[in-house]
Formats: sequence, structure tokens, C-alpha cells
Amino acid sequence: MNRRAFLTGTAALIGVTATQALLSQLRAEPPSAPEDPTKESGAPPSAYGQRSTFEQALRLAGSSSSLTPLQDLHGIVTPASLHFERHHNGVPLIDPARHRLLIHGLVQRPMMFTMDDLKQFPAVSRLAFIECSGNSAGEWQGPRGQTAQETQGLISTSEWTGVLLAIVLREVGMKPDATWMLAEGADAAAMTRSIPVVPALEEALLCYAQNGEALRPEQGYPLRLLIPGWEGNVCIKWLRRLKLGTAPFMTREETSHYTDLMPNGTARQFTFVMEAKSVITSPSGGQQIRPGFVEIRGLAWSGRGRVTQVEVSTDGGETWRKAQL
Amino acid sequence: MNRRAFLTGTAALIGVTATQALLSQLRAEPPSAPEDPTKESGAPPSAYGQRSTFEQALRLAGSSSSLTPLQDLHGIVTPASLHFERHHNGVPLIDPARHRLLIHGLVQRPMMFTMDDLKQFPAVSRLAFIECSGNSAGEWQGPRGQTAQETQGLISTSEWTGVLLAIVLREVGMKPDATWMLAEGADAAAMTRSIPVVPALEEALLCYAQNGEALRPEQGYPLRLLIPGWEGNVCIKWLRRLKLGTAPFMTREETSHYTDLMPNGTARQFTFVMEAKSVITSPSGGQQIRPGFVEIRGLAWSGRGRVTQVEVSTDGGETWRKAQL
Repeated sequence: MNRRAFLTGTAALIGVTATQALLSQLRAEPPSAPEDPTKESGAPPSAYGQRSTFEQALRLAGSSSSLTPLQDLHGIVTPASLHFERHHNGVPLIDPARHRLLIHGLVQRPMMFTMDDLKQFPAVSRLAFIECSGNSAGEWQGPRGQTAQETQGLISTSEWTGVLLAIVLREVGMKPDATWMLAEGADAAAMTRSIPVVPALEEALLCYAQNGEALRPEQGYPLRLLIPGWEGNVCIKWLRRLKLGTAPFMTREETSHYTDLMPNGTARQFTFVMEAKSVITSPSGGQQIRPGFVEIRGLAWSGRGRVTQVEVSTDGGETWRKAQL
Repeated sequence: MNRRAFLTGTAALIGVTATQALLSQLRAEPPSAPEDPTKESGAPPSAYGQRSTFEQALRLAGSSSSLTPLQDLHGIVTPASLHFERHHNGVPLIDPARHRLLIHGLVQRPMMFTMDDLKQFPAVSRLAFIECSGNSAGEWQGPRGQTAQETQGLISTSEWTGVLLAIVLREVGMKPDATWMLAEGADAAAMTRSIPVVPALEEALLCYAQNGEALRPEQGYPLRLLIPGWEGNVCIKWLRRLKLGTAPFMTREETSHYTDLMPNGTARQFTFVMEAKSVITSPSGGQQIRPGFVEIRGLAWSGRGRVTQVEVSTDGGETWRKAQL
């Protein structure tokens, strides 16, 4: 539960109605159910279940990303099928039996690992959010999205399982002068980022599972880097190579992209940690609010550690009340 | 993480090989992936993701239940598609817009709740296991299953979200003399159990979501009872009715079934809590073990509270070592 917490406040909002989301136009007509389900035998057990055909929450898919329907979700675990996506040249189809991770550069023993090799190391699991560094960037120009999905849909939370990067780097004998690490994906963008080794070693995982099952293809199947609390783009998916060095590698994605433009026209590089943010997920644009008690639900998270307090205002910031975490 | 913990020990098992599980015969041939995935643009974002076609872990489905492939899973969250099933006359297809929960009997105000009514109450989320009371019962006659799935596959863990039963019973004005509650499902078995009110009030949820999305059909869509740590069969799925009374209702499922046969031929009724258990999930029958370091992974859980210590033996019980939780 580290690094992310519910914000749950209450307020009586009466008589508010909103138009249905455009998204609903995309949804298929649900099937009809028996008038009385107790009068018909139900379906037998199955080998791999699917959600009810009455459930139609969907990601909002663009050309290189898709947004999680935060306003339709519950709790903090994001179903893998609805975890946001961001990729730089599509989702590759990778055969895990042929996938390799090469670790080289400033190491005593350059090594090539199979997935079985990596799974042989001790496994750890972490409940952690991943947020695209561009999440809610569209809102800097003023409000644009109606739903939490449209405004903040590039964040999701999973239980991630893998091996600690620190353990694997010990195996290859990282040299003492190694301070930066290049991570490269096996996608058609060969997505690459430079990562400072010391802070990454604390928590970084070479991750092969998500919410109990293998990583989903969009999340880097069969292997991704996960540095909890850091920008999503640094958590290289379809991870195939780590190169240890003494300086950043100045890749395309950290020079032309993923920098922070300052007011004076210069740009900051290598700002990895996602700062504290929050979003109200319910009520959200497109939802109908009924008279009576309305619970305001939302998420608050920070790459800097556990959120300890959240305040909510229902009068445009005049007064604030503590949310229940 | 309450009520369930990892057991993770280590041992060097060298040169052990086992035959592949029969299950593998059931699995489809995986597709071929590009020789070099960096040379082909990948798939675009999608509205609802699916697992890789290379992943083929399946539930083992019988006539009225299916077993979770524990040996193929990671961490403690069970993917909803692989959560074990147990039902008494199939999985009903229920339209959530037409589903109702009736609460009556010893209450001030008998009421009928829609799903929207229930979602209007404050929501809480709990990470909890559900275990069928018959889990591993087959092993009482001696070892029968090869895999953790075959021996212990009637247990799974999810993040469950819903409204506290206590809050809804306050809404209907439960009378002080109400001590037992009948819970009835809307499946074709109209599955019913009697539940003592006082202990259930502590933690019971009227649950509509699982791992972030709506309950899966097999798990009671759109509404189930969840009493963390109690027998799965008491956590009535497709919940449509709660009746408050002063004594157990002596339903079919608590007289002819779900009792504990004692050596003297009598049977115990109303034993709800699942006791402490554990299972090694890896290595498991059908897995290949490679020479070198082998991490022994498993699960330990108890309906009585958090597991604080687990010991593992690798010499048939001669010596024991503490597992890392």
C-alpha cells in the first residue's frame, strides 16, 4: 500500500446531473439475462474466466497510449486488462523462451540471462503505482478532460513480482565506478533510458509478473524494469539490456523527450521521481449523481513515500476537510 | 496483506527432474513471435488487454468447481480469471440493473436495495483470501494430487471492495434480538447459509468489486457476501437476500453438507473459521528443477489472523528452518 492511498471524503451534493460520457457510444449492447436466474442452471466452471458482458469499462486508446478508466474502478489494484499503456512503437510480440537480458559494461562478468535464470533468483512482490510522466500534462493549458480517465488516466497500480536489481547486479559483479545504467527495451523503438545506479538499487525490480500472473504484453512481457515512484518511461518494458557506465548515455528519449521545460527556456534532465498528486475519481464527468449521501472517492499518491494526509474541499477551496485514508 | 503471508525458504536441490504435468496436454500451441521484435512495429494500444498467447496457466475445471493454478502464480494477488470457483448449480447470468438485495426479518425497516443503492454507501477495500472449506480434503486419504493446484487449488486472494455489512444493517435498523442471519444467493441452487450476526458484523462486506473491477461472474456478480477468514461457502455469491432471526435456519447446505464429521460419527455444525494452513507452490509436481540455487516458495494463511512465523523442512521433518515472510 506504500506510496499510494485512498482519499475518501464525504459531502452531500444534491441534484447534480451530468451528461453521459462519449465513451458510452463505443460500448456494445449487453446481452439479456434470464428473468429469474434461480430457474435456470448456470454456466459450468471454466479454465480461464472473463468479466461479465454487462461490464464495459474500457481504456481510452490513442495512437501510442491508452488511459485507465479510473472512474469505473474500485480499491487500488488496477485490473491488468485496464492498466494504462504507453509505448513508443507498439507492443511487441515476444517469445519468452527466446528472450534474453544482457548485462554488460562496467561489470566483472558480462552475462546473458534467460527468463528461467531470472526466475531462479529469490522473488519479491511490491504493490506499487506506475505513472506516466506525462499524466495530466494536458491539463496545464486548463481543464480539458471530463472524466478522471481523461485527465489522470496514465496511472495504475499493481502487485509487481520479480527479482531485485541489486541481487542480479551482484551476480554480474558491478564495478565500484559504475554510477549510471542504460536500460534498453526489445520493442521496435528500442526504448532506452539512463538510470543513476545508487538510488535505483534501493528498490528497483526486474519484474516478470503483475497481479499474480505474467506481465501483460502492454506492460513489458516478459520482463520490465520497475523503479517504484519513478517516471513510468524509466521503467523500461520488454527489457533486454542493461549497460553499466560512469555517465548518462544521453539517449533520444532523455534529450529530445522526457525533460522538464523551465520558464526561461532551459530544460531539466533526469528528474525521475513523480511528485505528490491526487484525483477525485467519483463523482467524475459523465456520472449521474443521486440525491442524498454522496461519497467523494479518489486517489492520492507520491513517488516520495506514503501519503499520510489528504484534504478535500467541496466549496472551491474556501474550506478543507481531512479525507479518510 | 492480513491473514496470509508468503513463506519463502531456500534450499539447494540438485539434479531433481519431474515429468511435465498432464495439464500441458490440454494447452494450445503458442504462436510464433518475430525473430527480432525490434524490427517490426508492435500492436497499437487496445481498449481491453489480454494476456500473452504464450501464457497458458489454466484453472482445472470439474463439474462444480475449478482449481487455481497456484504453482503458476506469483505474489499473493490471484488474477480474477484464475480465481478458483465453487458453485452449486452453475454460474448465473445476472443483469446488475435488475438485481436486488432484500433485507428483512428482525429489522425495523425491511428494504430492497439496488446495486446503485449499495454503491452509494461508503466503500472499503480489503486484501483477503477466500478458501473453500473442502480445500485439500482429497488429501485426507493420503497424497493424491501432484501439483499445488491439484492439492490446494481451492484458495485465492483478491482485493475486495464493497460496503460494510454493519453499515447496511444499521440502515435497516436491525433489532437487538437478531442473532442469526440467513444469506441467500440468486443462483439456480438458491444457495443459503445461516450466519451468526455478532462475529460477522466485525468484518463482513457486501462486496461488488474484485481486484479493481466488478466481481467476476464466478465470484458472485454483481454482489457477494465476504467474511474474511471464514469458509468460502458462507460468503454467499449472487447475494439477493438477508433475513435476520434468532436461530440458525437449518438450510440444506448446513445440515446435509458443510459439517465436520467427527470420529464418533457425529458432526459439528457452524464451524466457520478456516484454520492455519500452508502449501509449497514451487517446486510443485510437473515443474522442472534446475541445478543450483532453488527458492522454495509457498503460501501460509489463517482465518484467525496474520501469520507471523512459518518453518520449512527440506529433510522430511528432521530439521526446520524459518521461512522469510
